[in-house]
Amino acid sequence: MTASWPLPEPMALALEQARQAAAAGEVPIGAVIVKQGRVIATGRNAPRGRHDPTSHAEIEAIRAAALALGNERLDGCELWVTLEPCAMCAGAIVHARISRLYYAAADPKGGAVEHGARIFDHPQCLHRPEVYSGMGEAQAADMLRRFFQERR
Amino acid sequence: MTASWPLPEPMALALEQARQAAAAGEVPIGAVIVKQGRVIATGRNAPRGRHDPTSHAEIEAIRAAALALGNERLDGCELWVTLEPCAMCAGAIVHARISRLYYAAADPKGGAVEHGARIFDHPQCLHRPEVYSGMGEAQAADMLRRFFQERR
Repeated sequence: MTASWPLPEPMALALEQARQAAAAGEVPIGAVIVKQGRVIATGRNAPRGRHDPTSHAEIEAIRAAALALGNERLDGCELWVTLEPCAMCAGAIVHARISRLYYAAADPKGGAVEHGARIFDHPQCLHRPEVYSGMGEAQAADMLRRFFQERR
Repeated sequence: MTASWPLPEPMALALEQARQAAAAGEVPIGAVIVKQGRVIATGRNAPRGRHDPTSHAEIEAIRAAALALGNERLDGCELWVTLEPCAMCAGAIVHARISRLYYAAADPKGGAVEHGARIFDHPQCLHRPEVYSGMGEAQAADMLRRFFQERR
């Protein structure tokens, strides 16, 4: 599980966003949106600080990217995130027409891509991103584990 | 299907929000959040105008309510919305701990409460609101039908 090769830069940046979330007392999850090789938005989990239950890393990054592009559709964009998206975020990924989703750690409890509601697998799903997982898994999972251990 | 009794006030207000969305050229969906009998937030669909793919009526109302209360959790709150929530919005309802969900029209294509991903039905779902549907159904469905007919 220990990476012996360097992480792709967007995942390293997403992990840095997760670190910043932890430093602010939020569950450490971070996200980055890339278009044509360029980072156009970042986001980190901040529901407590922002008093906003929708403030997950993916939602923050998607909203920032759409605002930056002046377009509610993020065609051709990649979303890099440190944890498997929940149902809310997977639904937002569909609405935003994200082309490729990269997530580091799987989340059997709250994830809704390869677990639970499996949002992209329903016949009603209007858009399915390509999905890649596992890059940065050890770092992302370790950060979450430490965060919850310190709070127990 | 024609209501022969007056609609509950929150649903009438949600329909008025939907009307305002249509007037702005957005798909007519509206939402209202009620706490202890008092309307604390409203929201309407505005993804195009706001350049925000997450700008669904429910998300706008939930964000406004959480900000107004200074709390990411909306325990004891009711969400009234004119259409069956999608996966993104149903996920947000779970995160916000909405106590009761009232929706007017069912949405076999995009809904994720009684259709598709059925977000509240998975064992992983951490919170299940009470769900009521059908009040205001004819008005909500008619507004959507007319909106799409005019744009064909």
